[in-house]
Amino acid sequence: MHPTISKMQEIVAKGDEQAMKEILSPNVQFKPPTYYKTWTGRDPVAAILGHVGKIFQDFAYTRIMGHDKNWALEFKCKIGDLDIVGVDLITLGEDGLIDILEVTMRPLKSISELREAINSRVLKDPRFLKFKSALS
Amino acid sequence: MHPTISKMQEIVAKGDEQAMKEILSPNVQFKPPTYYKTWTGRDPVAAILGHVGKIFQDFAYTRIMGHDKNWALEFKCKIGDLDIVGVDLITLGEDGLIDILEVTMRPLKSISELREAINSRVLKDPRFLKFKSALS
Repeated sequence: MHPTISKMQEIVAKGDEQAMKEILSPNVQFKPPTYYKTWTGRDPVAAILGHVGKIFQDFAYTRIMGHDKNWALEFKCKIGDLDIVGVDLITLGEDGLIDILEVTMRPLKSISELREAINSRVLKDPRFLKFKSALS
Repeated sequence: MHPTISKMQEIVAKGDEQAMKEILSPNVQFKPPTYYKTWTGRDPVAAILGHVGKIFQDFAYTRIMGHDKNWALEFKCKIGDLDIVGVDLITLGEDGLIDILEVTMRPLKSISELREAINSRVLKDPRFLKFKSALS
């Protein structure tokens, strides 16, 4: 197990934004399940993941697959009454930090609910006025 | 690489329903990205996957992660003009056949489009009158 992947498992469920920054590459790319665009950069990505960690309930990683720089972390959680199964697809850089985090999920209805919940939280976080430029 | 996983890579992109049956357990469970319910049984699951293989364009597996009985097959494809990234989460049985296939995807909009496309094809396939009982 790569140490970054071990840390990730502890950090994500808590929505610990500061701890998350320590395992993200400065130019990390985050590709969310909710829409097509990509977030770039440690600060906005840690902020988004912090919000998501607060939205999910009963979050748990169920299978860790991969090796070297390529990892798939399967998880389950709830959003309200809806179940989610998802995968954190991770590409590590030469320095061992996360270069790319792409998240896939099922089912459709839960992703739709997640999108609403994220939008609602992010609109109340004034930092996202600045972070908007990190979305492309 | 497990031989079932090698075969899977050849079969899925073609939507080859007959070849698919040979790597599915008789009581395989298929958990689709499009809705919460589970399909059970080799015939209906192969039929669904056959349809999906015809809907996807430019399908390619990008990373194969896992070992032993637990696998994550990352893929990319298109549905119309929309990009999809997804993961086939596979659990193999003692006999080496696929016991569980759970599929996660992103982004939301593409999954929504996939749902429409599947419904439209399945409604024209008379076998699904019988297969309905395999959905729970």
